[in-house]
Amino acid sequence: MRLGILIMAAGKGTRLKSKRAKVLHEIGGRPLLSHVIAAAAQIVTPQDIHVVVGHQAAQVEAAVSNTHVQFVQQTEQRGTGHAIQCAEAATRDYEHLLVLSGDVPLLRPETIARLRDFHLSERAAMTILTAAPADPTGYGRVVRRSPKSPEVSVIVEQKALTPAQQQEPEINSGIYAFRRDTLYQHIGSLHDDNAHHELYLTDMAGILSAAGERVVAIEASDPIEVLGANTIAEMMDLDREMRLTAARRLMSQGVTIFRPDTVIIDVNVEVGPDTIIEPFVQLLGETKVGSDCRIRSGSVLESATLGDGIIVRNSCVISESKIEKGARIGPFAHIRPGSHIGESAHVGNFVETKKARLGTGAKANHLAYLGDAEIGNGTNIGAGTITCNYDGVHKHPTIIQDGVFIGSNSTLVAPLVIGEGAYVAAGSCITENVPADALALGRSRQTTKPHWAKNRRGRDKGQS
Amino acid sequence: MRLGILIMAAGKGTRLKSKRAKVLHEIGGRPLLSHVIAAAAQIVTPQDIHVVVGHQAAQVEAAVSNTHVQFVQQTEQRGTGHAIQCAEAATRDYEHLLVLSGDVPLLRPETIARLRDFHLSERAAMTILTAAPADPTGYGRVVRRSPKSPEVSVIVEQKALTPAQQQEPEINSGIYAFRRDTLYQHIGSLHDDNAHHELYLTDMAGILSAAGERVVAIEASDPIEVLGANTIAEMMDLDREMRLTAARRLMSQGVTIFRPDTVIIDVNVEVGPDTIIEPFVQLLGETKVGSDCRIRSGSVLESATLGDGIIVRNSCVISESKIEKGARIGPFAHIRPGSHIGESAHVGNFVETKKARLGTGAKANHLAYLGDAEIGNGTNIGAGTITCNYDGVHKHPTIIQDGVFIGSNSTLVAPLVIGEGAYVAAGSCITENVPADALALGRSRQTTKPHWAKNRRGRDKGQS
Amino acid sequence: MRLGILIMAAGKGTRLKSKRAKVLHEIGGRPLLSHVIAAAAQIVTPQDIHVVVGHQAAQVEAAVSNTHVQFVQQTEQRGTGHAIQCAEAATRDYEHLLVLSGDVPLLRPETIARLRDFHLSERAAMTILTAAPADPTGYGRVVRRSPKSPEVSVIVEQKALTPAQQQEPEINSGIYAFRRDTLYQHIGSLHDDNAHHELYLTDMAGILSAAGERVVAIEASDPIEVLGANTIAEMMDLDREMRLTAARRLMSQGVTIFRPDTVIIDVNVEVGPDTIIEPFVQLLGETKVGSDCRIRSGSVLESATLGDGIIVRNSCVISESKIEKGARIGPFAHIRPGSHIGESAHVGNFVETKKARLGTGAKANHLAYLGDAEIGNGTNIGAGTITCNYDGVHKHPTIIQDGVFIGSNSTLVAPLVIGEGAYVAAGSCITENVPADALALGRSRQTTKPHWAKNRRGRDKGQS
Repeated sequence: MRLGILIMAAGKGTRLKSKRAKVLHEIGGRPLLSHVIAAAAQIVTPQDIHVVVGHQAAQVEAAVSNTHVQFVQQTEQRGTGHAIQCAEAATRDYEHLLVLSGDVPLLRPETIARLRDFHLSERAAMTILTAAPADPTGYGRVVRRSPKSPEVSVIVEQKALTPAQQQEPEINSGIYAFRRDTLYQHIGSLHDDNAHHELYLTDMAGILSAAGERVVAIEASDPIEVLGANTIAEMMDLDREMRLTAARRLMSQGVTIFRPDTVIIDVNVEVGPDTIIEPFVQLLGETKVGSDCRIRSGSVLESATLGDGIIVRNSCVISESKIEKGARIGPFAHIRPGSHIGESAHVGNFVETKKARLGTGAKANHLAYLGDAEIGNGTNIGAGTITCNYDGVHKHPTIIQDGVFIGSNSTLVAPLVIGEGAYVAAGSCITENVPADALALGRSRQTTKPHWAKNRRGRDKGQS
Repeated sequence: MRLGILIMAAGKGTRLKSKRAKVLHEIGGRPLLSHVIAAAAQIVTPQDIHVVVGHQAAQVEAAVSNTHVQFVQQTEQRGTGHAIQCAEAATRDYEHLLVLSGDVPLLRPETIARLRDFHLSERAAMTILTAAPADPTGYGRVVRRSPKSPEVSVIVEQKALTPAQQQEPEINSGIYAFRRDTLYQHIGSLHDDNAHHELYLTDMAGILSAAGERVVAIEASDPIEVLGANTIAEMMDLDREMRLTAARRLMSQGVTIFRPDTVIIDVNVEVGPDTIIEPFVQLLGETKVGSDCRIRSGSVLESATLGDGIIVRNSCVISESKIEKGARIGPFAHIRPGSHIGESAHVGNFVETKKARLGTGAKANHLAYLGDAEIGNGTNIGAGTITCNYDGVHKHPTIIQDGVFIGSNSTLVAPLVIGEGAYVAAGSCITENVPADALALGRSRQTTKPHWAKNRRGRDKGQS
Repeated sequence: MRLGILIMAAGKGTRLKSKRAKVLHEIGGRPLLSHVIAAAAQIVTPQDIHVVVGHQAAQVEAAVSNTHVQFVQQTEQRGTGHAIQCAEAATRDYEHLLVLSGDVPLLRPETIARLRDFHLSERAAMTILTAAPADPTGYGRVVRRSPKSPEVSVIVEQKALTPAQQQEPEINSGIYAFRRDTLYQHIGSLHDDNAHHELYLTDMAGILSAAGERVVAIEASDPIEVLGANTIAEMMDLDREMRLTAARRLMSQGVTIFRPDTVIIDVNVEVGPDTIIEPFVQLLGETKVGSDCRIRSGSVLESATLGDGIIVRNSCVISESKIEKGARIGPFAHIRPGSHIGESAHVGNFVETKKARLGTGAKANHLAYLGDAEIGNGTNIGAGTITCNYDGVHKHPTIIQDGVFIGSNSTLVAPLVIGEGAYVAAGSCITENVPADALALGRSRQTTKPHWAKNRRGRDKGQS
């Protein structure tokens, strides 16, 4: 049995009031479409996932190009039925098609698999995924031949509901399975004599039924899975749901998350047991955090990798960097991409690292900029130290070997090598390499002018 | 027809447990009273808005003096009826009076206009604004002559309700319209034989009715509009509602607001479509943000003006400043009042600007203080640079022209002019003007003492 | 009457998926067990509180050792009945025992007292604290002899409920009072022929009843008080409840707390009236804040003591320090333990203090590190100033007396004394004491090389 998946992603989403195509809007840290592709990719290979693009097609393709799915062009926006027509050639090798919506991001792979299996076991021409939300108002309703029958007699749009049908609890999710040959045999019967002059895939239920084909329905176990979003406010509700689900998953694995309603966790994030996450924390992208860590309030980790037993204090920003076990970061540290903080190292307040490697037990506790730098094991970087990695034209590296002491307020002009065990006096500007075990100074001797300040105060008074 | 508005703002609000007068407490970024005045000012001119003040009258008047409304003194706190008596002289030119509460801040101008129009079309002596909240317990109830009649038979306080009246859903909001001459003709009939020895305006309904005058009621479409607050917790509920309303308004205009329940937006804030607001952001005061911006988590904008396509990274504070399009700010930047950040300029982490002007494409990426400074186009300010704008007595300006490179850890002693294309060596203290295209140095040559650090370690060991 | 309290704290809490013992998990800033001990300590002295420990006994004892309670070892985990058996010797002097759960942290002292008083006045052998939550499913049910009778006929576990008993609203909280001699006389009747082979204290109700002893029940007024937590998610719900209760308590005392659902307040925190707390603030540990303060968004105070009229601006971290009235802190200030900020002093952005004492009106407004320092009254610390308190081996103090002006980017090498009224030039490295009223300089004279930058640009172009 050859199965293909079609994902509808050509629409604009006018009610969003946005220039961006609807499926490019992000929830849970990724575009709507990415979530649907990720679920589909649990069922078939990327070669068998066909995304129908139209509005902002180039941007949509670019946004998900890393998934290696296929694309079908729907250059005119003439409805979901028309989208299926556009995909005829691309899908010619399949016996069955699953049709998903690119803007229904909470659908789980398990539910797609249930739809597929039910469709096959029922030997249906068309299978409709339905749901029974608390309030079905506004949705098309799926009417079964009898309450317990798998067979559908008709799908009725909200506007056309009879008073009796308004009580029908089962809504059409817009997600379907089709036997492909039957679908394309009858798709020409769709017509566009409706308000928007579009071809609606929904109408296939009636057409196939009338043609004596078997049309069945299966209800999703949780109606939230089939929710789409027509407004930004509704999309933000889905985002909230997705992030809270991630928080609940981590809590069930032994992670403590204080005030989980104020913590933002992306779907792929992993955290080890007995780690504590404080309020207002964000764990984004592909972030991985080990066990027995504490991430304090307000910190933001973006695709960061943390070992075990790490403390990230309040209001740190850590991006695309690696932190080894036992390190202490922050508060107010900015660990920029390409940083690697060694075991038990300390990076303190108002310190920025960029492509910096700190060795085991190295310390940069206060007010420093370490860019394009290698800091050895046990080396101490004094407060106010700046690596001058940029001369206005090029970037240069700074290498500080093991066991070095850099005095406070030092200016380290790269390229520079400071040898093992060396000592740089506070307030120095260092422009030449420092041999191991040497002392380097680059500062002026202090001079003192007695009574100067007193005299000045006298003059200032005289002036005013 | 001459219409005046009276706003009751003389009370203390004992249950708040606060020294401040009730109407001075802030929600949505402004005092309660300011919201009511803003709504009233959509209906009549400030000359026709009369605020009755009493408790902390001077502070209340000062807090809203910029609105140019009128004030009526109620020196004794003898109830709402007494407040009306105090306003007799000030309101003598009006045919009709609307009476609003200074502590009912969610009332919309549309609802005030509906009250006015209904009052006039009904030719009533008194019109009562009512509401039907889910739980009316605790409120006075408005009893109509018959369920669908506009006419009111009586207002009954909660304590005096009969069991049948406890089912009455319609509450008295304390907001009224009056035909002025009839009001003052009968106001002497109010009496204070009640627990607090106050004159209650509520009693006018019965008095006027008994006198054969027409008393009618109109229900507010949303009961939340007429909610007041007797405790700080209730006031905070109103604040939450007001801020969420602002967030919903922006979302409906194409602004993406992640976790809108954690974002604080003041009523007057404007944001362009396709801007993304992350959680824990605050947009306060008169802040205006353009389109296609991203405001990252934890940032606070206070009366800031941002162009299009700007990124404000995490945890920035931006106050009373202007940021031009395409700029990149933060994380951890503090843009203080009077700053003007040019197009595509960058202000990075741990950088403070105060009355600083950065030109197009200028950069100050790390750990710097720029105060009373002008920075030219394309100029690069190295990490750790400080403008020394204060000599202990006066503040002085620093002018850095276009295309300058300021090396890291520079100390720039103002007043100072650094000419176009000049270069300041890292670690320099600059005390004199630098000509265009020149190099300025103000630092010592490095000296190195071999083996010093090793010897010192030996000594330290010897000591211990 | 001699009364002892037994607290059950020996369990592991398997469903938490955590290495830590259940009672060590923290909510409201303290371990679960600490809350229970704190409530018990309102009823009896610490000598009469006996905590039954087992799993991770050493860590549990260490975590609450400051409370001076007694410990009973339950080395095998054989159920609550077995825990009571283990406590026989330790409790021999009491006439009555109250049995509390170490993982039921919201129980109020008032409720414990009610349980005790009811138990005594009813002359019962066993008194069960019950509750009537909205949904009793999953809990053992307490069946009374008749609906209004104090007397209990039986406690039925959820699994054993008859259909009729499933309607019983009253659940067993697991909290009891016992007449001690009767308890130990019958405790041998407990048997472990159940799924977990444990001895359940619950079964004493049936045993004592059957023996003709009086078993009664009293219902807690608020069911939330007897809630335990079996999963981390449930524990986080208790944390939320506890923190919101603290926020509501402060609001009722005249404290304004914007968006109290986003503010984290520990149970012991005190705040004076007319102080304003902004969103995303945390007031932790033993923090005390005076009146008329404003704590702006994102700031975290941990066991800090603040006087009246203080402004803490956004995103500050203040730990174990004292701030005197009228001070201004932040934004982005880090006040580390042992700091003492004087009256009307200012500590500004990107400033770190550690064991630093600032005098009245002293200022350190920008980018500074003040460690092991005493700063005099009215002294001004320039931007970028660093106290070099660490020489790689020892820490040394810096003393800056009254009325000193420290120029920006100064490096102050400790140990150091700067006398009253002295002036340190910007960019100086100061290594020797400065006499009062003197000027100290430690910087190089500026030199300028005309055309250098222009020529360099020419060279760079030539290269590329």
